[in-house]
Amino acid sequence: MNKSKAWTAETIAIGSELLLGGRMDTNSLFIADHLATCGVELRYKSIVGDELSDIVGVLKTAARRVRVVIITGGLGPTIDDLTREAVAQATGQRLSRRKTALDGMIARFAEWGRTPTKAQLRQAMIPAGGEVLTNPVGTAPGFALIWKDTFFAALPGVPREMEPMIQDGVLPRLQAWIGKHKGIPATPVIRRVLHTSGVPESIVDQRLEGLLPDGTAIQLGIYASPMEVMVSLTGPEKESGPVTIDRLFEDAKTRLGDIMYGEADETMESVVGRLLTDQHLTLALAESCTGGLIGHRLTQIPGSSAYVDRGVVSYSNRAKVELLGVSPDLLDRHGAVSAEVAAAMARGIRERSGVSVGLSVTGIAGPGGATKSKPVGLVYVGLDGGPGENLTKEFRFHGGDRSVIKQRSSQAALDVLRRWLITKGGG
Amino acid sequence: MNKSKAWTAETIAIGSELLLGGRMDTNSLFIADHLATCGVELRYKSIVGDELSDIVGVLKTAARRVRVVIITGGLGPTIDDLTREAVAQATGQRLSRRKTALDGMIARFAEWGRTPTKAQLRQAMIPAGGEVLTNPVGTAPGFALIWKDTFFAALPGVPREMEPMIQDGVLPRLQAWIGKHKGIPATPVIRRVLHTSGVPESIVDQRLEGLLPDGTAIQLGIYASPMEVMVSLTGPEKESGPVTIDRLFEDAKTRLGDIMYGEADETMESVVGRLLTDQHLTLALAESCTGGLIGHRLTQIPGSSAYVDRGVVSYSNRAKVELLGVSPDLLDRHGAVSAEVAAAMARGIRERSGVSVGLSVTGIAGPGGATKSKPVGLVYVGLDGGPGENLTKEFRFHGGDRSVIKQRSSQAALDVLRRWLITKGGG
Repeated sequence: MNKSKAWTAETIAIGSELLLGGRMDTNSLFIADHLATCGVELRYKSIVGDELSDIVGVLKTAARRVRVVIITGGLGPTIDDLTREAVAQATGQRLSRRKTALDGMIARFAEWGRTPTKAQLRQAMIPAGGEVLTNPVGTAPGFALIWKDTFFAALPGVPREMEPMIQDGVLPRLQAWIGKHKGIPATPVIRRVLHTSGVPESIVDQRLEGLLPDGTAIQLGIYASPMEVMVSLTGPEKESGPVTIDRLFEDAKTRLGDIMYGEADETMESVVGRLLTDQHLTLALAESCTGGLIGHRLTQIPGSSAYVDRGVVSYSNRAKVELLGVSPDLLDRHGAVSAEVAAAMARGIRERSGVSVGLSVTGIAGPGGATKSKPVGLVYVGLDGGPGENLTKEFRFHGGDRSVIKQRSSQAALDVLRRWLITKGGG
Repeated sequence: MNKSKAWTAETIAIGSELLLGGRMDTNSLFIADHLATCGVELRYKSIVGDELSDIVGVLKTAARRVRVVIITGGLGPTIDDLTREAVAQATGQRLSRRKTALDGMIARFAEWGRTPTKAQLRQAMIPAGGEVLTNPVGTAPGFALIWKDTFFAALPGVPREMEPMIQDGVLPRLQAWIGKHKGIPATPVIRRVLHTSGVPESIVDQRLEGLLPDGTAIQLGIYASPMEVMVSLTGPEKESGPVTIDRLFEDAKTRLGDIMYGEADETMESVVGRLLTDQHLTLALAESCTGGLIGHRLTQIPGSSAYVDRGVVSYSNRAKVELLGVSPDLLDRHGAVSAEVAAAMARGIRERSGVSVGLSVTGIAGPGGATKSKPVGLVYVGLDGGPGENLTKEFRFHGGDRSVIKQRSSQAALDVLRRWLITKGGG
């Protein structure tokens, strides 16, 4: 709780609906990574409802324990939007309508052919001593102020408004303020991230054993989720001796080899899309247990229509026969969930669609449909890239419900395709 | 910040990875709803990393401002799991290995044919004065204790472990403790939720205007997200005069009519699945811009193989011709994104698959592919339920990126199907 010795930060998200969760918080990572580049470490995250005295209390607590506070939300025009009032009350400052804030708002509304309502004009009220932070996207301006030797910035909660305001409004002011504190060293820190697939956390752990030299300030993080194991290296941006974060990152990539599928904000579907584009190949899908999820993931990438030709969700056996030409006899002999049927599905979709490569998946997502020899989580992936270019792979996913098994199956299928494309592209 | 007058609560989630967000928090809603049934209102949510002094500070802050604290996470076997130590340090109690905790753990490991390691035995360490909370699913026991007249419970962060422990371990103890505080009235509160689709927030707002009578303690919440507008009524469980939360909920449902598609934890895909099951109908999909998302959503529901026969993702025009029998001439004349092609896709998939109803969607998800007359966000949905039973509907989604437009398109298509099924079922 001693804030005098280090550059620490807290985010405060304001809004009663946020107390109930259920939304993906993408702001925290963005804010943490950007503060880190100034040498400021995110240590606390607070969420509080639209209750004036609660917000004031949270602001006071933050001023006691950290040096940098980023407030998001509560800057809208309604009476539930209390960030301005709470900051004014906590700091003992008055709110006044600021010309720069007002002009920016009026200009934004004019672009849309509108004029602000009286309620919307409240958004130009800024606590005395605060600097207006221009909102280049929406109508609500933000503000920054220093109180109790703590840097406060209040921003809208919407990512596409918050993000440019952090970059253009907050960081330059924060850096200038940090520069004034000669006695408190700030070490800019960067984070490098890579993504692995197809192996458990323990294998990633093993491969990276001994990566970090003794006494380094660089930290290694290994985080498992149903879809992947993520690896992060966090440390000083500047070199300190021969060990740099960039060198360790390259070392980690070498150790992981083809377990690693991407870095930074790459996804499995973006990587597969890039490989298909580079090799001028087209793809068709034959999905059973994933129900369309692979197609959905691939088509999240802008421009994917250049390589995704079509997909078939052959949920019933009849659909497998009619749409993919899987023989009823094969289905009878091996069952729909089998390597043989996965192979026939991949070949069928490739041949019928005339694409370069067919990818298939069939499995038991549960909770029903399992037999003694075919448990929930048994999944086969098939790939067909033409004569002599075909393979199948069996997976057994343990634990996790239907939704998790579908996710893991889609990831496994895309990873089979990725590895095949890499071999093909390299050979 | 005055905790003496009301039953207020805070959740504290412990784990450095949680500071970076990026995971869906489903715990908060569960905890908030269950605390509310005891008359306890969730007011703060804190997230803190694996730093002992930071956690101790957060615990002390919570004890000052609320009466009930639910801690999640940090109960694992690694040295980064510091919840036990932090609670012991904050409260000035010693940790000791508790027999009930140990026995439970050993029994759980024995079920799996294993014995706990020395590190895992740390999980049986509980602060003095704390009561052990049995974990019916995993290995880490939780605990509950009273400190500074505040009720603390520490639980694993994994939902399937946390949830039964709240229900069976925390709530009975909390209720007993609340019962001892005669001077502080606790009003059990329940929340009723319903979901609407296809109209903006302002329309829902309008329809519900005047729903709440003057002076009622029941609160109305209206929350918009890209997929839906959610309505909640929160208020005392027990009747107070003629206005009860149940009566208002029925009134709200009547006012909203077919805008409402479900209540509580129902989803569009579960509702559509129920309607198809009840009417013994089968479905086939022809998706273009949604890329498989509709199939993915429908097959999230266990047992969906009973009514989802197949789907086709006809991303290319050739796939529309080959798989759905859309005429090249129709594509030339109207373009792939048109009501005519949506109708042909729906008819094609129904006729070729022999199901009861075909559902199609074609549109421009962006960012590319738009023309002057066909902007990003223009989407057509087609439905074909046999001769004389067909319709198309045009949507224009403004704002939002590719992913949001895909989501909204899938929701719109399922809603078209839902409304048709209701009319059919009722007629």
